Amino acid sequence: MNMSHMDIIDRQSLVREPRVVIVGAGFGGLRAAHALRNAPVQITVIDRNNHHLFQPLLYQVATAGLSPADISAPIRAILREQKNTTVLMAEVTGIDTARRLVLAEEQATPERRTIPYDYLIIATGASHSYFGHDQWAPFAPGLKSIVDATNLRRKILLAFEAAEMESDPERQKELLTFVLVGAGPTGVEMAGSIAELAHKALAKDFRNIDPRAARIILVEASPRILAAFPENMAKKAHKALNHLGVEVRTHASVQEITEDGVIIAGEFLPTRTVIWTAGVTASPAGRWLHANVDRSGHVEVNADLSVPGYPEIFVIGDTARVMQDGKPLPGVAPVAMQEGIYVASVIARRVAGEEEPGPFQYRNKGNLATVGRSFGLADVGRVQLDGFIGWLLWLVVHIVYLIGFRNRAVVLFQWAWAYLTFQRGARLITFNIPSEVMRKELQKELV
Amino acid sequence: MNMSHMDIIDRQSLVREPRVVIVGAGFGGLRAAHALRNAPVQITVIDRNNHHLFQPLLYQVATAGLSPADISAPIRAILREQKNTTVLMAEVTGIDTARRLVLAEEQATPERRTIPYDYLIIATGASHSYFGHDQWAPFAPGLKSIVDATNLRRKILLAFEAAEMESDPERQKELLTFVLVGAGPTGVEMAGSIAELAHKALAKDFRNIDPRAARIILVEASPRILAAFPENMAKKAHKALNHLGVEVRTHASVQEITEDGVIIAGEFLPTRTVIWTAGVTASPAGRWLHANVDRSGHVEVNADLSVPGYPEIFVIGDTARVMQDGKPLPGVAPVAMQEGIYVASVIARRVAGEEEPGPFQYRNKGNLATVGRSFGLADVGRVQLDGFIGWLLWLVVHIVYLIGFRNRAVVLFQWAWAYLTFQRGARLITFNIPSEVMRKELQKELV
Repeated sequence: MNMSHMDIIDRQSLVREPRVVIVGAGFGGLRAAHALRNAPVQITVIDRNNHHLFQPLLYQVATAGLSPADISAPIRAILREQKNTTVLMAEVTGIDTARRLVLAEEQATPERRTIPYDYLIIATGASHSYFGHDQWAPFAPGLKSIVDATNLRRKILLAFEAAEMESDPERQKELLTFVLVGAGPTGVEMAGSIAELAHKALAKDFRNIDPRAARIILVEASPRILAAFPENMAKKAHKALNHLGVEVRTHASVQEITEDGVIIAGEFLPTRTVIWTAGVTASPAGRWLHANVDRSGHVEVNADLSVPGYPEIFVIGDTARVMQDGKPLPGVAPVAMQEGIYVASVIARRVAGEEEPGPFQYRNKGNLATVGRSFGLADVGRVQLDGFIGWLLWLVVHIVYLIGFRNRAVVLFQWAWAYLTFQRGARLITFNIPSEVMRKELQKELV
Repeated sequence: MNMSHMDIIDRQSLVREPRVVIVGAGFGGLRAAHALRNAPVQITVIDRNNHHLFQPLLYQVATAGLSPADISAPIRAILREQKNTTVLMAEVTGIDTARRLVLAEEQATPERRTIPYDYLIIATGASHSYFGHDQWAPFAPGLKSIVDATNLRRKILLAFEAAEMESDPERQKELLTFVLVGAGPTGVEMAGSIAELAHKALAKDFRNIDPRAARIILVEASPRILAAFPENMAKKAHKALNHLGVEVRTHASVQEITEDGVIIAGEFLPTRTVIWTAGVTASPAGRWLHANVDRSGHVEVNADLSVPGYPEIFVIGDTARVMQDGKPLPGVAPVAMQEGIYVASVIARRVAGEEEPGPFQYRNKGNLATVGRSFGLADVGRVQLDGFIGWLLWLVVHIVYLIGFRNRAVVLFQWAWAYLTFQRGARLITFNIPSEVMRKELQKELV
């Protein structure tokens, strides 16, 4: 009996379970994996990090309220009990749609690797975009990863240290001016949090400066802040920001950002700290697939979230452009999660030989945002809450969705502590100089 | 009336309070500052970091048990209410003993700065030393700073990720072999903690490897581990390590460390992870002062901890060589703290025109160490405790000494959580690539 290599592979493929590859362990990817936990499939979850990141709280890390580990959970630990699932820590570099292979580079080794799929779910998120002004990037960092957050934390805390050292009052003022570009939820939350850091937590910690004199300026090109919220609620948030000492400038577009400051609506504003909380651009999945993308790189998908021409490939979350009621769905966690669950059901039904579900339909359960430590906004269907009640709802929702009991408990404790005392637990300035380097320098000097 | 510039300075110096400069906000420096809180002096505390680091728990950060912020506290916050004290975040580069100036570079700005002193306390600690084998440094990192700890954490966690990807069983074994060089308290605590990480916390998280098969090898050149403890207690710790699955090799000196492994007592042991927990070298204070130092750079001091020839300069903690009963005092926190308090009293009395206290005398209140999550050693005078009781004492002492209520509470909670579940809260692998860089790459690809 003689059997060629190809024969063996073909026979194996007849009996093996379908392979589902999920790229990205964000809200969408993890939900899809979870929804397929009992399906007769072999799942591989690929992420370049070893942890799921709870991105809505990233601004808390950047403003020294929480530690990186408080808003992260190891992907392997989350999927530990899910026996049909393997986790791969690797950076995806492309997709061979003809041979149905994901191309990736392992993070722990220099090896390349190809991962075969029968179904592919792409949930690779988005990055920030400077709308064609990439030269602004070094002066106006954004907030998408843990490294971004700890870099921003260092930048903000060092501005106060530098101001304390400075004798020229003009330069002191520049150092204590913080400009945030873009008044969506992240910009609003970040501005409120910096204001509280400066005006409360750091208030008595310096001798030559008064951190309460710090200016926090939130700049927005459109007529008002928080475009996703009804106008009356955005107005209340605007007032709450003012109350915290944040200057809000609407109708004001940024024309230039340099090392020395920003030009806003024709006026030069000297500052050393600009934070980018405006546009995003989707991950390069569109290029991997040679698919149609919009201006921001979002992949256009069918009604079942599959990519035109590739019924076995699905794109979800911030990477996809999903139209509903004539508008694209926003890049928020609930959209990604509902899409992940939907796509899992499409795959499960196809594998079972059942009819596919109807087209994807997003059910908007509401919008939440917070301004500082006691003012929240909740726009939940016909119910609108603001003030302390809105803040409590925001808190509960965010705590409940923090993956892992430990994270929930630690974050709750940190918040309670910060709330009662106005202190910040994670006021840590770290540099990337390992002490070996330091030690070598020292030993050179010692002899 | 005509008055020269010099006259003005001299007149001012007659009325102003004496200036005390403290370099280093570790255990010794902070205790000295605190002890001078009511003295009629102007204190400047200089540190290159903005935070005090609770070094005895650094191994917990390296093994993913705690977050960096849990074992750190901002120096400014600690000294906030101490009105006679200013904090300066700067790296000291030298001392002008003739003009009584500390030379420093600010951390937040590129500026140089000179800080005049009437009394100077040097408490700059120590770094690790490879005993003349500096070429080992890249392959056997040590543990002295937060960056060291997060780098080690990444290295350890990535070893498991790489092993999971590896198909060659021999290379898998190499990746799952962890060698610690030096069985003092840090080596013993770290070995126990890695053993628990591998054998408990990660046990079920992988599909291709069994982390319980990981080898943790603790190497010690001398005849036994924990030289600072009585022999019978060290024996018990040795057994407790074995019980956790740690291989202990005493009488075994390390002859070579390379990228591929270590040579211990003539035998080559292939491994990718070697951790240096052996010798230390003092900070370069000796060179700044042109003072006599021992082989490891510790500054020789008088009985009142002042530097011979400079009665106004004191050296304390890990930087000083203080002899007692014919032996140098060990580089541990209690020694540094008692020395800080003593030196503060010397200065306070001199300022008040009172007689100096007698020579410094260290009162040893005991030694503590821990092996894993439930075995501790406490050698407290005539009382010796080991096992769970010893561990509880270790826990209480470390919690009590953690500066800041928040840190205490968070650490207690994290430990309780880790204790009850064997989980690790800070299993975070972070790279130093900001997402701007990533984003630029993405946008290049998108077009």
